[in-house]
Amino acid sequence: MSVILNPTATPLYSSSFSSFLNHSNFNTRSQNVSSPAKSLGVCKCVAAPQESQTGYRTNVSRNANMAKLQAGYLFPEVARRRSALLLKYPDSKVISLGIGDTTEPIPEVITSAMATKVNSLATIEGYSGYGAYEGEKPLRRAIASTFYTDLGIEEDDIFVSDGSKCDISRLQVVFGSNVTMAVQDPSYPAYVDSSVIMGQTGQYLKDAQKYGSIEYMWCSPENGFFPDLSSASRTDIIFFCSPNNPTGAVATREQLSQLVQFAKNNGSIVVYDSAYAMYISDDSPRSIFEIPGAKEVALETASSSKYAGFTGVRLGWTVVPKQLLFSDGFPVAKDFSRIISTCFNGASNISQAGGLACLSPEGLKAMKEVIGFYKENANIIVETFESLGFKVYGGKNAPYAWVHFPGRGSWDVFNEILEKAPVVTTPGSGFGPGGEDFIRVSAFGHRENILEACRRLKELYS
Amino acid sequence: MSVILNPTATPLYSSSFSSFLNHSNFNTRSQNVSSPAKSLGVCKCVAAPQESQTGYRTNVSRNANMAKLQAGYLFPEVARRRSALLLKYPDSKVISLGIGDTTEPIPEVITSAMATKVNSLATIEGYSGYGAYEGEKPLRRAIASTFYTDLGIEEDDIFVSDGSKCDISRLQVVFGSNVTMAVQDPSYPAYVDSSVIMGQTGQYLKDAQKYGSIEYMWCSPENGFFPDLSSASRTDIIFFCSPNNPTGAVATREQLSQLVQFAKNNGSIVVYDSAYAMYISDDSPRSIFEIPGAKEVALETASSSKYAGFTGVRLGWTVVPKQLLFSDGFPVAKDFSRIISTCFNGASNISQAGGLACLSPEGLKAMKEVIGFYKENANIIVETFESLGFKVYGGKNAPYAWVHFPGRGSWDVFNEILEKAPVVTTPGSGFGPGGEDFIRVSAFGHRENILEACRRLKELYS
Repeated sequence: MSVILNPTATPLYSSSFSSFLNHSNFNTRSQNVSSPAKSLGVCKCVAAPQESQTGYRTNVSRNANMAKLQAGYLFPEVARRRSALLLKYPDSKVISLGIGDTTEPIPEVITSAMATKVNSLATIEGYSGYGAYEGEKPLRRAIASTFYTDLGIEEDDIFVSDGSKCDISRLQVVFGSNVTMAVQDPSYPAYVDSSVIMGQTGQYLKDAQKYGSIEYMWCSPENGFFPDLSSASRTDIIFFCSPNNPTGAVATREQLSQLVQFAKNNGSIVVYDSAYAMYISDDSPRSIFEIPGAKEVALETASSSKYAGFTGVRLGWTVVPKQLLFSDGFPVAKDFSRIISTCFNGASNISQAGGLACLSPEGLKAMKEVIGFYKENANIIVETFESLGFKVYGGKNAPYAWVHFPGRGSWDVFNEILEKAPVVTTPGSGFGPGGEDFIRVSAFGHRENILEACRRLKELYS
Repeated sequence: MSVILNPTATPLYSSSFSSFLNHSNFNTRSQNVSSPAKSLGVCKCVAAPQESQTGYRTNVSRNANMAKLQAGYLFPEVARRRSALLLKYPDSKVISLGIGDTTEPIPEVITSAMATKVNSLATIEGYSGYGAYEGEKPLRRAIASTFYTDLGIEEDDIFVSDGSKCDISRLQVVFGSNVTMAVQDPSYPAYVDSSVIMGQTGQYLKDAQKYGSIEYMWCSPENGFFPDLSSASRTDIIFFCSPNNPTGAVATREQLSQLVQFAKNNGSIVVYDSAYAMYISDDSPRSIFEIPGAKEVALETASSSKYAGFTGVRLGWTVVPKQLLFSDGFPVAKDFSRIISTCFNGASNISQAGGLACLSPEGLKAMKEVIGFYKENANIIVETFESLGFKVYGGKNAPYAWVHFPGRGSWDVFNEILEKAPVVTTPGSGFGPGGEDFIRVSAFGHRENILEACRRLKELYS
């Protein structure tokens, strides 16, 4: 096949993508395979390079931090490669196990609450305009009592938002450019990219595949995907995600206690990403606040996306305990609140009505069923790769399988599977140099697509 | 009355506010007067100062830019004063003409489209997860053809978002800390505050009531609320809002041509806020892109909030023409796109379905009726103040009346009206030193509340 899928090539900013997306004869419904426009984001068609060279230019310098960023954000880049394949072979029945995008319908108990809210907005009695920036009180209360009972987290520690990723950037704005940062390596790319954007890092070091001034804490099968904290440098901020995206590893109580102690010894703040907490099957902590003392060194981001299928509806929250203080004694929550009111106007009131329904007894039951379904998918994927002799991590407490391809570049493996299966995965090195030799396989998908993808993978690798 | 409403006092961060909001016997429905929690945002109750002083502190320094910010964001501060009054006098029937919060139901043609979308999310065929970061194609296309026909703006220049205020902050992240900034004085406070947060400014200069390194372009009755550009310093970025919030002034075609020429001469970028464009009654431009050459020096933010009553639903958009380039020729749109994909996950798919319905022929007709209603309110307010001998600006092409109280401090006037009417307005100086001696009166409200507020104002001032 002659499809150009060179990972180092310039991203293709061509209007031909958008025309392809309009005229594709790739039938999404009959195959129950999502279209690229829907599940992976439409390829952005901003100015083609030649346009940039000719016209009038302002005298405003481009932000040097933006210029440090390498290529595109990971998932649009994956989408571009998928689109390139489809452009060349429009009849390809590509199955997406790439970006962690939910596919199953939202339980009716949740949509009906949203529909009720929508309809009430057309009435004088039911209409509401601006809500509280931090979210509606009943929702904040329900989040506190559902997820943080007996953990000392109160409803005024909860900040409702339009999602975890958005909150991560808002937190970076709170921290500013003069902090140092650590991430697990590999990790969800929004941590590193938002850190680069805020000017917390040095330039990209091509050989190391790392940005200067970020502490990359290596996580691999050798250390059970938990970093060796005895060798890690002190930083102001530590991003930590459990269950982990992309490795699927979950941190034990003992490991998280080590992390909290490490943060306390160093006076660091842990930004704990718990977006997948409800996928935990064993007795690992679902919240960093299960660890004594965590409220003084940690805040926690969370999301309804992967529980209720809210990837498109948009709802999340961040817990910033009032006990978390900067070195001058100023509460982090107070600055976060200021950012929330100055740079944000609250999550949609419709999404919040859905979020409240999620936390009713029926809503919780329905969410657990959806999560159980995706976990069965994960199990099928894990078993498939294991049957082919691959070493597979994750997939037990997370909707991601982390598959090892020792000695092979992860973009090469990604391209091989995309071209030959064709199945979209995510190349491990997109999550940092520690992800080289791995691919992430998402368990989000209709069952028939998961089974078909596994059949094709068996054909490819057996 | 002994209510403490001292504008220089420390904001009250006390948990008594939240208990008040829970137990108030202030009946919102029977009076058709919104509760503070709904229309002005719940007062945030983060750590009380004494808590901040005692516990464990991290070693993370507070962001010095955050520390530059004065008091709270304007509208939460206004809400706190209102709550203070209600705490003392829970039976006060306060009418809110403060924050520009819509009060009329969303037209049924729009809510029914959102309800259809919500219900479809419960089905396999209708479910969708992550959408395109920049918004759904049909919506971008409808925005381009509804608002920018024949202006050379294409659908890929449109970035759909969760609102103008959020986009303003994302734009500031794109620009970074090394740009200089100009604002109209007075202006919507999110411009200045987000500039401070990003580190573009100096410290707050108490005597001048200004931040260092921001160019405040004075707008007053003397200059027809259009700045004297011949005396304005060159800056990288110029925030410009028309119809203006708070003054209600609309810039003419000739004035906007001057602005575009000024930007072009200086190589500046104009961030044009058109959130109130549909309120224009005369033939003033509804978009900066009506001015020839604007695409090379301007981008434009817009919002569905004040048209369709989407203040709570959350939907807006920003137009970044592909012709707008940084000094190195790099397209601004490309960096904005990167921020959109890295720091944001798109507007709620439900809000976007509503946004699309807004732009159908029936939706446009319904929106115009709602806008017409608010404009009648504005007219009533303007006539009331004029009948009392006040000089009133705005209110013709905008939902705000800008009332002159020569020689009186605007917080004093605000307090007087809040205590004695009681009606919530917004003190002009909250929009910058150029707003001193003015108050902004919002025309958003049920008709009976507007009439009652005007009756009380007549009683107070006649």
